[in-house]
Amino acid sequence: MSLPQDTPPIRYLDDMKVGLRFTGESRVVQEREIIAFARQFDPQPFHIDAGLASQTLFGGLIASGWHTAAMTMRLLLDAFPIGNGTIGLGGEAAWPNPVRANDTLHIEGEVTAVAPSRSYDDRGIVTVCTETKNQNGEVVQTLTANLLVFRRKSNSV
Amino acid sequence: MSLPQDTPPIRYLDDMKVGLRFTGESRVVQEREIIAFARQFDPQPFHIDAGLASQTLFGGLIASGWHTAAMTMRLLLDAFPIGNGTIGLGGEAAWPNPVRANDTLHIEGEVTAVAPSRSYDDRGIVTVCTETKNQNGEVVQTLTANLLVFRRKSNSV
Repeated sequence: MSLPQDTPPIRYLDDMKVGLRFTGESRVVQEREIIAFARQFDPQPFHIDAGLASQTLFGGLIASGWHTAAMTMRLLLDAFPIGNGTIGLGGEAAWPNPVRANDTLHIEGEVTAVAPSRSYDDRGIVTVCTETKNQNGEVVQTLTANLLVFRRKSNSV
Repeated sequence: MSLPQDTPPIRYLDDMKVGLRFTGESRVVQEREIIAFARQFDPQPFHIDAGLASQTLFGGLIASGWHTAAMTMRLLLDAFPIGNGTIGLGGEAAWPNPVRANDTLHIEGEVTAVAPSRSYDDRGIVTVCTETKNQNGEVVQTLTANLLVFRRKSNSV
């Protein structure tokens, strides 16, 4: 089990180092949240109707992958706060296992690259890899994200 | 301007070919939608408060990238329906330009790879690249997604 820090420090580019790890608080996923998200953005039977979902490949209701990504973003903000904001330029995600109602999710993350900008002294790109895991330790999402991160004394944002 | 089809056909693995292109209907993004999504999943000043956002790098309120991804999913479902569902295994996204309130988004997509499964006759992986564009033709998201797609006669889902 991951034991999250009580108050994670706010980090700037100056603080970022390859190998820096973090873990986050847990979040329980409610069935109504899965359905509400999917009705808006991904209204497919296996995301919005438990009865129909039971007859699909998934054998029951599962969260949209984009919902898992959005929940992961919230967990990331709480677990790894970045000065001037967490600004994603892009990234790569995969959903190796589904998220189901009443799953308890948490994230485990690591900084895998730190690249100061060649054009601007005050910023750089930090690559963060996260695994979002359920209560059984199964990985429901992997994410490699490139974040725009500023130095501590920057006035740019 | 893209001219979407009236009723896009439902496609199975049998129908997928590299170079197959599609476009979708437009969607206007409301400020309240940007704020509602971000309050839940990405509550940073530049996503939830127009006043604070005006003092940031972005000069105003912008949508969370995950919100753009979720809206793109909805546009994709409508523009390119897939038999047995649109099941994403993962993918790569980038957000080269921000989405702002009252932007009108649409997607343009193309199938870039079709890989029948080596283990199962009834399915394969189809790679779809989409660009989500605003009313000025600026790309607000690129996405390369790997989708699990079944053959027409499959009973698997």
